Amino acid sequence: MRQDHIISAKQLSRRDIEAVLDRAAEIAADPSAYADRHEGSLLGLLFFEPSTRTKMSFSAAMKRLGGDIVDMGTVESSSVKKGESLADTVRVVEGYADALVLRHPSEGAAQMASEFVDAPLINAGDGAGQHPTQTLLDLYTIRENAGFDDLSIGIMGDLKYGRTVHSLAHALTVFDARQHFVSPESLQLPRSVRYDLHESGAEVREHTDLDDVLSELDVLYVTRIQKERFPDESEYHEVAGEYQIDAATIREHNEDLTVMHPLPRVDEIDHDVDELDGAQYFQQAHNGVPVRMALLDMVLEESR
Amino acid sequence: MRQDHIISAKQLSRRDIEAVLDRAAEIAADPSAYADRHEGSLLGLLFFEPSTRTKMSFSAAMKRLGGDIVDMGTVESSSVKKGESLADTVRVVEGYADALVLRHPSEGAAQMASEFVDAPLINAGDGAGQHPTQTLLDLYTIRENAGFDDLSIGIMGDLKYGRTVHSLAHALTVFDARQHFVSPESLQLPRSVRYDLHESGAEVREHTDLDDVLSELDVLYVTRIQKERFPDESEYHEVAGEYQIDAATIREHNEDLTVMHPLPRVDEIDHDVDELDGAQYFQQAHNGVPVRMALLDMVLEESR
Amino acid sequence: MRQDHIISAKQLSRRDIEAVLDRAAEIAADPSAYADRHEGSLLGLLFFEPSTRTKMSFSAAMKRLGGDIVDMGTVESSSVKKGESLADTVRVVEGYADALVLRHPSEGAAQMASEFVDAPLINAGDGAGQHPTQTLLDLYTIRENAGFDDLSIGIMGDLKYGRTVHSLAHALTVFDARQHFVSPESLQLPRSVRYDLHESGAEVREHTDLDDVLSELDVLYVTRIQKERFPDESEYHEVAGEYQIDAATIREHNEDLTVMHPLPRVDEIDHDVDELDGAQYFQQAHNGVPVRMALLDMVLEESR
Repeated sequence: MRQDHIISAKQLSRRDIEAVLDRAAEIAADPSAYADRHEGSLLGLLFFEPSTRTKMSFSAAMKRLGGDIVDMGTVESSSVKKGESLADTVRVVEGYADALVLRHPSEGAAQMASEFVDAPLINAGDGAGQHPTQTLLDLYTIRENAGFDDLSIGIMGDLKYGRTVHSLAHALTVFDARQHFVSPESLQLPRSVRYDLHESGAEVREHTDLDDVLSELDVLYVTRIQKERFPDESEYHEVAGEYQIDAATIREHNEDLTVMHPLPRVDEIDHDVDELDGAQYFQQAHNGVPVRMALLDMVLEESR
Repeated sequence: MRQDHIISAKQLSRRDIEAVLDRAAEIAADPSAYADRHEGSLLGLLFFEPSTRTKMSFSAAMKRLGGDIVDMGTVESSSVKKGESLADTVRVVEGYADALVLRHPSEGAAQMASEFVDAPLINAGDGAGQHPTQTLLDLYTIRENAGFDDLSIGIMGDLKYGRTVHSLAHALTVFDARQHFVSPESLQLPRSVRYDLHESGAEVREHTDLDDVLSELDVLYVTRIQKERFPDESEYHEVAGEYQIDAATIREHNEDLTVMHPLPRVDEIDHDVDELDGAQYFQQAHNGVPVRMALLDMVLEESR
Repeated sequence: MRQDHIISAKQLSRRDIEAVLDRAAEIAADPSAYADRHEGSLLGLLFFEPSTRTKMSFSAAMKRLGGDIVDMGTVESSSVKKGESLADTVRVVEGYADALVLRHPSEGAAQMASEFVDAPLINAGDGAGQHPTQTLLDLYTIRENAGFDDLSIGIMGDLKYGRTVHSLAHALTVFDARQHFVSPESLQLPRSVRYDLHESGAEVREHTDLDDVLSELDVLYVTRIQKERFPDESEYHEVAGEYQIDAATIREHNEDLTVMHPLPRVDEIDHDVDELDGAQYFQQAHNGVPVRMALLDMVLEESR
C-alpha cells in the first residue's frame, strides 16, 4: 500500500485488499510470530461516539502486536466540550501516539482529520460514511469460508441506512461477486449506491423475498432492521418478521450456507442458527483482530 | 483446580482455596518471579456496573503478571444499549482475550455467561449473588493475620443484604471457624443463609451488641450499613451509630484484634483506628492483587 | 530532587527544574534509551475531573518508559459516589500502583492526599491550585525555543482565573525573566499573585494593549478568555476580540515570536498562525510526554 491513512475501502485496490487479507491469514495462522512486532508503539484511540466492539478489537489487535493504546475516553470527558476543533484535537493526540484510530459521528471527519496529521490515521467509522476495517474483516470472513471465486452473496435487511452494507457491496465489485439484495421496499439500496454498483459493472439483483434466492447463495449477510426507521411499531414488527432467518430454513434450503452479521443482532438471526457450522458471525467479529493487526502492522511499517 | 470458570466460592474445596492462597503468598513474597509469566495474554474486562476497586485490582493483577487488559468500558458506551444479549456479548469478547472477568447486576449472570464461552470466565460480582475473588482475598487476609486454627471471627453491620458477608460466612465453614454475627435485628442474616450455615455444621452465634463478644474475637469484619435500607433517616442514624468501632474501644477490650472491611467505609470504622497495627482493611484491599494474580495464573495455565 | 511527591512547582528549586528539563531533553533526543526503563511499573491514575490531554499525556509517558497504567476511570463509576473519602481512596489505590497521579477539583487536594501515601504522588491539577507538570512543560518549551537568558515573555488573556498562568509566572521568577502581562482590566492578575511576584523580585509589567509590547517579546503565551467570566455576552465578545492574535500581526511586528498556548484554544489564536515557524502550541502539548517521562523516571527511581 502506498497510502498511510486508511479512510475508505474505496481507496484500496484489489491488490491492496488481498495484501491485507494475506497478512491477516498469516497472523491468524501464527500469532506468536507477531507478538513483539510493534513493542513500544502506541495507538491513539479517538472515539467521538461509542463503539465497544470496534474499540476492543483495535485495542486487542495493537496489544497482540506487542504495542499499547492511549485512549481519549468519552467525549464527555474531553476537551471537545470546551469547544476544541477536531483538527486541533488530532494534532495534539498525534504527539502521544504512533498511529491514530478515529471514530466520529460526522461523514467526512476522518478524511478532514487526516489532512492535519503526519501519523497514519485509520477511519473506524464516520457517521453514514466509511468503516474500512469492518469491510476488510467482512471480506476476510467471506474469503475464509466461501472464497471469492464465482461467489454468490445475499445481503439482507436494512440496505438503505446500513453503512456496512454499502461499503461491502462496493468492495465486492472488485471480486466480481454476484450480489443479491434482499429487503423490504422501504429499505432498499439508495439510488446513489445502486448507480455506483452498476457503474462498477457489478452483477446486482434486488429481491423482497429471501426464498427467491436462498438456495443459490454461498453467503448470507444479515443486518439489523432498526425500529426507529418506521413511523409506527406495528409496521416495524410486520416487516422485520419477514427478514429473519432460522436453522430450519437453512437446513431445508441451503445446508452449506455461510451466515454473517456485523453484530449486534437482535432477533434477525434466530439463536438456533448459532449451532450450525455455517454460523460465522461470532468468528467474523473475532476476525477483526488479525485483520486489524495486519492493517496496523502495514501502516506502522510504512510510517517508519 | 479442575474448573476453569470461577463463578462462586462455593465451587472451591478447602484444598482449592488453600492452593490459591498458597500461590498468592508465593507471589506476594516475590512478585518479580511472576512479572513475565503471562506476557502477551489479554484479560477481557466486562463490567456491566461500576466497580472501580475490583476493576483496578484485576487490571493491576493482570499487568503484574506481564499481561494486559481489553476493557469493554461502561454499559452506556456498549452494544448492550442496542439490545445485544449477554450471551452474544461474551461470545464476541471471547475473541479479543484469553480470559474474561464479568461484573453484572443480575444474580446468576456469570453462570449463564460461562456456558457460552470456552475462555475461562471469572465472576467479579453478580448482583446479590457471588463475588468469589472478594471472598478469597478476605480469606487470605484472615490467614495472614490470625490463621484459621481455632479462629473466632465477628462479622458486623448489614448482614441481610451484604453479598460479601454471605459468601465469606459460607467459605469460613470449611475452616471450622467460630462465627459471631453482630447486627441490628432488622439487618440479621437472611433465613436461607442461616439455614445453609447450620447445614454445613458451622458454629454460628448471633448478637445485637458487639460488647457481648468483642473480647473473644481474633478478627472483626465490619461492613457498611446503608442509609437506603431504612424507611426514615433518624432510624438509620440511631442504628448505624451502634455498629461503629473506634480505637479506644479496641484498646480497652481487645488490643490484638484484626479489623477488616471490604471498603468503602463511611463512618463505621473511626479514622483513629487507622493507626492501630490491627487495622488491616487497606492491606486487605491491597491483597486483592496477589490473590487475583494467583487465580489468573491458575486459570490461564489451566486453559492452555 | 529530595521530594518524592510533586505537589507544586513552587517546591522545585531552579536546580530541580533544570534537572527535569535536562532529563526531558535527553529523553526527547533518544527516547529508545528509555523504552524499557520502568518495565513492570504501574502508574495509578486518579482523575476526579475530566482532563483528556493531561491523562493521555501521562499515559503515553508511562508507556514510553515501558510501564503501564491502572486507571480509576470517571468519578461516576467510582467508590467516591458511595461516600469514600479521598484519603481512603488514595490509600487503596496505592496498593495497585508504584506511583500515583491525582487530578482533583479542590485546591489543596493533592497536598492532603500525599500525606496518606508512601508511593510518590504527582499533582495533575487541583482546582484553582497547582498543576506543576504543565508548568514544567511550559518551561521546557520556552527553553527549547527562546532560552532563559535575557528572556522577555508576554502572557495574555485571562490572568485572573488562569491557574496555569500564576504557576508559570512564579516559576519564571527563578529564571529572571521580564514578564509582561496583557489583559483587560477585569481579568488582571489577582493582587496576591502580583504581590508574590514582586516579593520574588520579578521584573513585571502590566498592559491592556498587546501592541505596546509585542515587538519586544521573545515568547507570547496566550490563554483563553472564558465566556462564563462575563455577566453579558456582548461584553465578552468585545473584550475577547481584543486579545486575539493572527499571522499578519506577527509578521508585521515580530517575525521571530514564539507563540504558546496551554490549549484547548477557541479563537484567541487565529488558525493562520498555525503555519508560522513560531507556532509552538502543538509542540508544547507534545512536550508533555518527555517532560512527564523525565519526572516519572525521577520519582520512580527515587522511591525504589
